[in-house]
Amino acid sequence: MIVGGGFGGLKAARKLARHDVSVTLVDRVNHHLFQPLLYQVSTGILAGSQIAPALRDVFVGARNVRVILAEVRGIDLQRRTVSATAASELTLPYDTLIVAAGARDSYFGHDEWERDAPGMKSLDDAYRIRTRILNAFEQAETSEAGGERDAYLTFVIVGAGPTGVELAGQLAYLSRHTLKNHYRAIRSEDARIVLLDAEPNVLPSFPERLRAKTAAQLRRVGVEVLVGTRATSIDEHGIDLGGPDGATRIASHTVVWAAGVRGSALAEQLAGASGVSLDKLGRLEVAGDLSLRGHPEVFAIGDMIAIDGVPGVAQAALQEGAYVAAVIARRLAGRAAPPPFRYRDKGNLAIVGRSWAVADIRGLQLTGFLAWLIWAGVHIAFLVDWQKRLEVIRRWFWEFLTQARHERLISAVSLLPDDLARSELESAQRRRSRGHS
Amino acid sequence: MIVGGGFGGLKAARKLARHDVSVTLVDRVNHHLFQPLLYQVSTGILAGSQIAPALRDVFVGARNVRVILAEVRGIDLQRRTVSATAASELTLPYDTLIVAAGARDSYFGHDEWERDAPGMKSLDDAYRIRTRILNAFEQAETSEAGGERDAYLTFVIVGAGPTGVELAGQLAYLSRHTLKNHYRAIRSEDARIVLLDAEPNVLPSFPERLRAKTAAQLRRVGVEVLVGTRATSIDEHGIDLGGPDGATRIASHTVVWAAGVRGSALAEQLAGASGVSLDKLGRLEVAGDLSLRGHPEVFAIGDMIAIDGVPGVAQAALQEGAYVAAVIARRLAGRAAPPPFRYRDKGNLAIVGRSWAVADIRGLQLTGFLAWLIWAGVHIAFLVDWQKRLEVIRRWFWEFLTQARHERLISAVSLLPDDLARSELESAQRRRSRGHS
Repeated sequence: MIVGGGFGGLKAARKLARHDVSVTLVDRVNHHLFQPLLYQVSTGILAGSQIAPALRDVFVGARNVRVILAEVRGIDLQRRTVSATAASELTLPYDTLIVAAGARDSYFGHDEWERDAPGMKSLDDAYRIRTRILNAFEQAETSEAGGERDAYLTFVIVGAGPTGVELAGQLAYLSRHTLKNHYRAIRSEDARIVLLDAEPNVLPSFPERLRAKTAAQLRRVGVEVLVGTRATSIDEHGIDLGGPDGATRIASHTVVWAAGVRGSALAEQLAGASGVSLDKLGRLEVAGDLSLRGHPEVFAIGDMIAIDGVPGVAQAALQEGAYVAAVIARRLAGRAAPPPFRYRDKGNLAIVGRSWAVADIRGLQLTGFLAWLIWAGVHIAFLVDWQKRLEVIRRWFWEFLTQARHERLISAVSLLPDDLARSELESAQRRRSRGHS
Repeated sequence: MIVGGGFGGLKAARKLARHDVSVTLVDRVNHHLFQPLLYQVSTGILAGSQIAPALRDVFVGARNVRVILAEVRGIDLQRRTVSATAASELTLPYDTLIVAAGARDSYFGHDEWERDAPGMKSLDDAYRIRTRILNAFEQAETSEAGGERDAYLTFVIVGAGPTGVELAGQLAYLSRHTLKNHYRAIRSEDARIVLLDAEPNVLPSFPERLRAKTAAQLRRVGVEVLVGTRATSIDEHGIDLGGPDGATRIASHTVVWAAGVRGSALAEQLAGASGVSLDKLGRLEVAGDLSLRGHPEVFAIGDMIAIDGVPGVAQAALQEGAYVAAVIARRLAGRAAPPPFRYRDKGNLAIVGRSWAVADIRGLQLTGFLAWLIWAGVHIAFLVDWQKRLEVIRRWFWEFLTQARHERLISAVSLLPDDLARSELESAQRRRSRGHS
């Protein structure tokens, strides 16, 4: 049984599918999510379906793999069952269990910030953020200059890791190119994009030289980079900052959280049930073969576990999924266990804007267009199926040519968000319309 | 001022944009919707964005057109203002007004059926229906045979006009081809697709010979056609029918309403304010030049008006939009009014399954592949921009080749619909999983 169809769980399921075992894959959504491109959904470049293959499609030919759409609530290590909720409560027994439940956003003790600074973990999150971003431009268009308009045109991204950097870059591109000339009362290119981090640098996991180049490139495309600056409070009207220069406030109706993650609630649960400890990010400390200490039949992989020197990235989860599948296959074949898991860092990439990226590949440090080509190649190669690869290539190519973005729907449901501050639309509206009709 | 960015409103706005006037287009969503292909979103073939261009994209080059995202609440004919809700309440004055607010579903006095038999008017509706359809297969997969499973695998479409016929055909194709081999406990091709209509025929607006051929083709692709049969009650467990053979009941968790429409609430409002009468479908009776009697500065077009012999279809709305734009342009130029509006029926088309359509084009009656080619050509030609045309062609071609559909996302939000009957998942689940892990 595998809990979670992310990078780790999906990899393990695909590897195990080739063996004479019955695999049950449980996920609360019916698709795998190619999370490294999720920010492109938030910024209107890609459709959700282009980065999210249906799990049943992936395993249509694997008759020994069963997919169950249900939310896992708990794991009973003694009775070896997983309890899950679908239309009714399920109790699913297992012989061997792989828990790959991932991470969730961490607000460092300020969970109340989530409402006004949503994180970006699922497709639903990405759609919600996309709606907020596009809606902010719509509200700015009908707001009075100098009043609420500036707050609607100010976007703050908290956290300058790869996700924050890439989102800020795309948001700058969206406002400066894609939406140019789309409004009559505002200039979308006047939008202020602020990228915030408490650390003294962007991309802390990259070498110093690349950090500096990335910060410079971000500024070039129109992002204000505020490093060494901490969020001290976030509400629907803006964000309070504490930094070396004292406290300031940025009025903004669109704050996105990309600052930190902690292990899934299932990590906590497993820790409680097995006596294994969690690190300060709520991640399980597992044995060398990625099993739960005292429970050789239970493995945990991906963002919910803590291993020294292994970052919470897709390539780590993929390697762990493949490793655990091998451990299980060997065990079933009666062969000796493999040596403990060892992470192989294949390099790190991040993109800023349209055709500029930063790459750190086993000591090779690149920036600019060449790095961007590598970035594009790697991301295309790792998409799960050919149909999606072609569509994504076509979309990128089209956007490259035309600067247009086609995923910009706001539905009636999201039109009137009551968590957005009421603006002073009306009077501005009335005045402006008089000139028009 | 134009209220509504559907076929009629969009056409009028595009025509007027070429004149020396200021146009304000108000819609509650930020996109035009190519409604004739909406059922393809409900059945997983197309992404919403592929049939829904952003209104701002359409008018990006027309500096005299302003788009406002807001929901129109009322029209004050005396003060010549439109009141609308965005983040705040707006009051928008007009000189000349075109109301193109469309139609909504009509449940013939049984509004309580809407919960269990949703209609399909907006993208949100289509996503909701897609989720219900896909979720029904998921629930069937984990339900006990002979119990709830059959109700989950039974789909009832009420109304055998073009929308109902096309939806039923695609649903049959989805279950018999696309989803084949995707499940382990059920065979998706066992799904029962029922198409219901109180009239004695499918496609009542088509000639008799084409109706019979369409019914035969529907049966061939796996749709049960129940004509002359009326829904007498709909609840979450199924639908009660009254027909020539007496009352029967079909147990089903997925009923879709495609049976009838009535004019927008704004038609009622305008009728009340102007003393003009409504027909029995709640549609405004307008003057020969499509203006509101007594208010030459107010026009109404599209599905919200009643004109003898003019059906509620896209081509009628398009012609009315173009006509009204011409009336206004002539009036502003001081030229004589054109003759009263006359509808030119360019023909009717409907599709069943993958490559079979029925066409009635000015007396020319066709069925089969040739009609399908015409159908595909016409629909591609009327899509608003080239980017979307290419994507839709590619999707259709890909589906034609592979039978695969890529819009099949179910998100966590929709996983646990509390309006779906609780099933007997658990015990079946437990038993089945024992064999698996």
